[in-house]
Amino acid sequence: MDERNVRILHAIAQLGTGSPDEISEYTDIPTSTVHYRLSQLKEDGIVTNDLFDVDLKKLGLEITIITEVIAEYDEEYHEEVGSKLADIEGVNQVYFTMGDTDFIVIAHLSDREMVHRLISDYESIDEVVRTSSQFVIETVKDEPHPLNDFDLETLLETIHG
Amino acid sequence: MDERNVRILHAIAQLGTGSPDEISEYTDIPTSTVHYRLSQLKEDGIVTNDLFDVDLKKLGLEITIITEVIAEYDEEYHEEVGSKLADIEGVNQVYFTMGDTDFIVIAHLSDREMVHRLISDYESIDEVVRTSSQFVIETVKDEPHPLNDFDLETLLETIHG
Amino acid sequence: MDERNVRILHAIAQLGTGSPDEISEYTDIPTSTVHYRLSQLKEDGIVTNDLFDVDLKKLGLEITIITEVIAEYDEEYHEEVGSKLADIEGVNQVYFTMGDTDFIVIAHLSDREMVHRLISDYESIDEVVRTSSQFVIETVKDEPHPLNDFDLETLLETIHG
Amino acid sequence: MDERNVRILHAIAQLGTGSPDEISEYTDIPTSTVHYRLSQLKEDGIVTNDLFDVDLKKLGLEITIITEVIAEYDEEYHEEVGSKLADIEGVNQVYFTMGDTDFIVIAHLSDREMVHRLISDYESIDEVVRTSSQFVIETVKDEPHPLNDFDLETLLETIHG
Amino acid sequence: MDERNVRILHAIAQLGTGSPDEISEYTDIPTSTVHYRLSQLKEDGIVTNDLFDVDLKKLGLEITIITEVIAEYDEEYHEEVGSKLADIEGVNQVYFTMGDTDFIVIAHLSDREMVHRLISDYESIDEVVRTSSQFVIETVKDEPHPLNDFDLETLLETIHG
Amino acid sequence: MDERNVRILHAIAQLGTGSPDEISEYTDIPTSTVHYRLSQLKEDGIVTNDLFDVDLKKLGLEITIITEVIAEYDEEYHEEVGSKLADIEGVNQVYFTMGDTDFIVIAHLSDREMVHRLISDYESIDEVVRTSSQFVIETVKDEPHPLNDFDLETLLETIHG
Amino acid sequence: MDERNVRILHAIAQLGTGSPDEISEYTDIPTSTVHYRLSQLKEDGIVTNDLFDVDLKKLGLEITIITEVIAEYDEEYHEEVGSKLADIEGVNQVYFTMGDTDFIVIAHLSDREMVHRLISDYESIDEVVRTSSQFVIETVKDEPHPLNDFDLETLLETIHG
Amino acid sequence: MDERNVRILHAIAQLGTGSPDEISEYTDIPTSTVHYRLSQLKEDGIVTNDLFDVDLKKLGLEITIITEVIAEYDEEYHEEVGSKLADIEGVNQVYFTMGDTDFIVIAHLSDREMVHRLISDYESIDEVVRTSSQFVIETVKDEPHPLNDFDLETLLETIHG
Repeated sequence: MDERNVRILHAIAQLGTGSPDEISEYTDIPTSTVHYRLSQLKEDGIVTNDLFDVDLKKLGLEITIITEVIAEYDEEYHEEVGSKLADIEGVNQVYFTMGDTDFIVIAHLSDREMVHRLISDYESIDEVVRTSSQFVIETVKDEPHPLNDFDLETLLETIHG
Repeated sequence: MDERNVRILHAIAQLGTGSPDEISEYTDIPTSTVHYRLSQLKEDGIVTNDLFDVDLKKLGLEITIITEVIAEYDEEYHEEVGSKLADIEGVNQVYFTMGDTDFIVIAHLSDREMVHRLISDYESIDEVVRTSSQFVIETVKDEPHPLNDFDLETLLETIHG
Repeated sequence: MDERNVRILHAIAQLGTGSPDEISEYTDIPTSTVHYRLSQLKEDGIVTNDLFDVDLKKLGLEITIITEVIAEYDEEYHEEVGSKLADIEGVNQVYFTMGDTDFIVIAHLSDREMVHRLISDYESIDEVVRTSSQFVIETVKDEPHPLNDFDLETLLETIHG
Repeated sequence: MDERNVRILHAIAQLGTGSPDEISEYTDIPTSTVHYRLSQLKEDGIVTNDLFDVDLKKLGLEITIITEVIAEYDEEYHEEVGSKLADIEGVNQVYFTMGDTDFIVIAHLSDREMVHRLISDYESIDEVVRTSSQFVIETVKDEPHPLNDFDLETLLETIHG
Repeated sequence: MDERNVRILHAIAQLGTGSPDEISEYTDIPTSTVHYRLSQLKEDGIVTNDLFDVDLKKLGLEITIITEVIAEYDEEYHEEVGSKLADIEGVNQVYFTMGDTDFIVIAHLSDREMVHRLISDYESIDEVVRTSSQFVIETVKDEPHPLNDFDLETLLETIHG
Repeated sequence: MDERNVRILHAIAQLGTGSPDEISEYTDIPTSTVHYRLSQLKEDGIVTNDLFDVDLKKLGLEITIITEVIAEYDEEYHEEVGSKLADIEGVNQVYFTMGDTDFIVIAHLSDREMVHRLISDYESIDEVVRTSSQFVIETVKDEPHPLNDFDLETLLETIHG
Repeated sequence: MDERNVRILHAIAQLGTGSPDEISEYTDIPTSTVHYRLSQLKEDGIVTNDLFDVDLKKLGLEITIITEVIAEYDEEYHEEVGSKLADIEGVNQVYFTMGDTDFIVIAHLSDREMVHRLISDYESIDEVVRTSSQFVIETVKDEPHPLNDFDLETLLETIHG
Repeated sequence: MDERNVRILHAIAQLGTGSPDEISEYTDIPTSTVHYRLSQLKEDGIVTNDLFDVDLKKLGLEITIITEVIAEYDEEYHEEVGSKLADIEGVNQVYFTMGDTDFIVIAHLSDREMVHRLISDYESIDEVVRTSSQFVIETVKDEPHPLNDFDLETLLETIHG
């Protein structure tokens, strides 16, 4: 994929919009080019819908790693450590859980070298005591729009309630 | 939140678009109303940007449960079990991992009763041998657009490569 | 401790009252005797207050066992198994927990023979797959009145809201 | 529930009595009012019997958390740590067990914010190395009067001996 | 059991002999008394054979605790820690194992207070990081003479070889 | 070691006596030879005292294996399984423990082939679900006479009471 | 790498020889070509020495997976299961260990699809109950000639002994 | 096995060749003797093929130990610790794995004393926090030439690709 496409996709995620004008302003790529590129990206199935969801596999981010992080136990430590984990490149989700009072972290990566870097990034956080990473063999489901996880009836009951 | 808003948000997720016309057609709510409602939802911070991301907390889906599922060990069993897990209401992500050859499942729920129902739904899958659920105390990060997890430079290197 | 005292204490727990008349009716021990016995039991520190809390140690129930119970995994199995566990003599608390979807059970016993019997009782429940029991070395706290676990201010905030 | 009822229930637990006179003195609420309120509370099922047991659910304390606490290993450390754990608001039971020489703690709480505070309170104890909390899905049994866990015959054998 | 019997049994174990003369010299109890007492002890089943094996249960040492000890990891640390563990009263066997490079310790005790003391003794060893103790419900076999664990044929093959 | 010595040592363990006459009768080895052999065995340090304790290492039984046995969970299953385990050659101690309601078994063996056989013997017990064996690197303490684990004072207190 | 090179390397491993004549006969590639190809493979660093060790990374077999396999517990089951595991493509080492009486298996693979196939192959063995695979981040050492793991002095002592 | 044979086998492993000339130069053993010895070693089955693979069992290295090593968690610590582990005598393979971010180490040894020394060598590495070793009961497969783990077809597909 050429550089312009990457810049456009990056702008969409950063700005939270698919508006060609705003993307053009942010990237210095002419609006008409943005227009054209976006329709290309949709045609190629990289952008999968009008909400500008992207196909991670087609973008080469096909490795998913789920890591359990155990950190030093100190008052309010989890806020510090949590935000450090969230800042690591590739890290997509960080949960502070009750089970063993540590973190579950999900990251998307493209190759073995990035896996190496991720592990090193975890190691470089002082408060981190131990990590245990699991390689995802298959992502059975990863729904970007959680409302799709419910029937309309359930949503009406739950949210409208 | 009233019923129409729920129907509109549901339509966006189902259709993968924020186009008022398509939403109107799907929901039988007049286009102008959809227009008006959408701008209301944005003002209230329930819809958080032009990509129509929603704020789960404001929608009342504030409980997140991460479950480790161990299933009976049989040839290709994981495809079957994986899709059964993916079909349970509230389940947002299902990963088949290498660690112990089982599943990690993430669900969003609104209250204790839904937690009960989730556990019962897991129990009702024949091949499931054991589950261990963890209550998320705090969601430190849950980025709907994975490209935001990377610097532009890294993306250029990785994807443009 | 003589038989009458045991009968009186048993009646209090069964009836949920410390009224000498009701105890007398339930036990066929004359009201005046009940009166006298109760004041004796208070003097001896076996009944510790007007709410008729008893001192388990003084009653010889000085062994506490905490057991983790893993049961067969079946739809709604936990209701069945839970009530079977609750029926075992000496079992005081039964919790169905999210952690590993099994039970934590707390029992009070008087001697090694009762420990034997407890383990056998667990074994005789068909759905029980495995138990792991822990001997309590010291009960640091076991407050019969949970409201005592809070400051008045917290209660006012929490309950009065 | 209004403030006076909370004060009355708190007084009962603190004083270990249901005597309207003593409650009145402790709370500065007129005895006649105490009388009236108590019969109201019984009628509403919040006070469940003459022993003044309360219905935690009706009081809004519907969350139960069971926590395994691992502490630094030092001579007699368990007395120190045990009493610090016992002092945390909401903590109802603290057991020092043989299994892994640490604590099992049971707490009753009313909402997610209190869960947060509980975890932070554990974190703020210096000697605590790690905690693992489990959310109770269902309290199958929690008998305030342990003598009810036994048949009269067993009690006669065991206590009367 | 009276003091003289205890002294005699203690002397047998210390001296490694059942000779009344040596026992008499060690204990200052007249030889004839030793003679008489020994035959009494055999009659009562406390001394079970001519090799002067004793019945621990009849002596009141009926509690057996098996403890897994994890110690700080340092060069040759296991010799130090091993001998400290061996010196604790009641400790009968100490094994340094390959599994997790720590110790398995077996102790015989008479009552709950001694269990308390044992746990405290473990805690007071600086290098000990963690212990996990298990209560033995039933000693199915504890053969003082390991040669009885084999058929004569096996012994002939193995030892005579 | 020649066959006669093995027979004599075996007889001592079987009969529970060191009496040359009884050994002679049991083994058909002349009493005088038994006499002579016994003093030889003591001189060589194989028999280590008057109580006829033997030095396992000198007898070639230098491998010690500690095995955790998990068995099927059934009413009173532990009696059956326990006695089957106790019957396996080389097995010296069998404890039914509370920790995970299974067995801890200690065996003495002479070589790798016997280790193989031991594992196979465990496998051949139907009710056994899983075993986990640990190789003992060093036996720090294995006291054949438990009374030696105590000071005389403690024994006097404990037994004499 | 072209087909002929693959055939030649395969022949070397199969025949246990680097003799061009034997390789030629096995592969139907002319001896002179084998000669030429072998010197090419050495020059390219794919064959690393005269013992015909190969560089797995250069051959594209850069993924190493270490799997713990737990199998059904049955008399002598480990021979059956062991040989089935050994027959799976990519599996390089299979150890039956004492720790938890199961297998540790090491496999070399080239890509994600082969990882999928490996997991499926494990699943298709009936006796296999559970597997837990670990992804090797870095192979720090993998010495094809174990004698290189020792100093000459140690070898002389150990083997010559 | 005599000293010269050991020197020759050692030279082969060190030099990565079976050439009698080079071995002779390295060992100062005359070429003709090397020739003769090599054919002897092949005849005796110690050298098993033309690639000079050796039979570890026949060389007395019949104990295999698989160790899980957990090390202090520090930035890039694994490189340091990995190379220290690789330098220990007898250590054949060292893998840095993702599972719990620690090492799996495989060593070949000849007797119990070497096992002792191995454990002590692990203990003497400062960064090592804990090791857990497993004794291999049976090496089901240990293929020195990984290409033998594949069918020719798979190799053609995978490598030739």
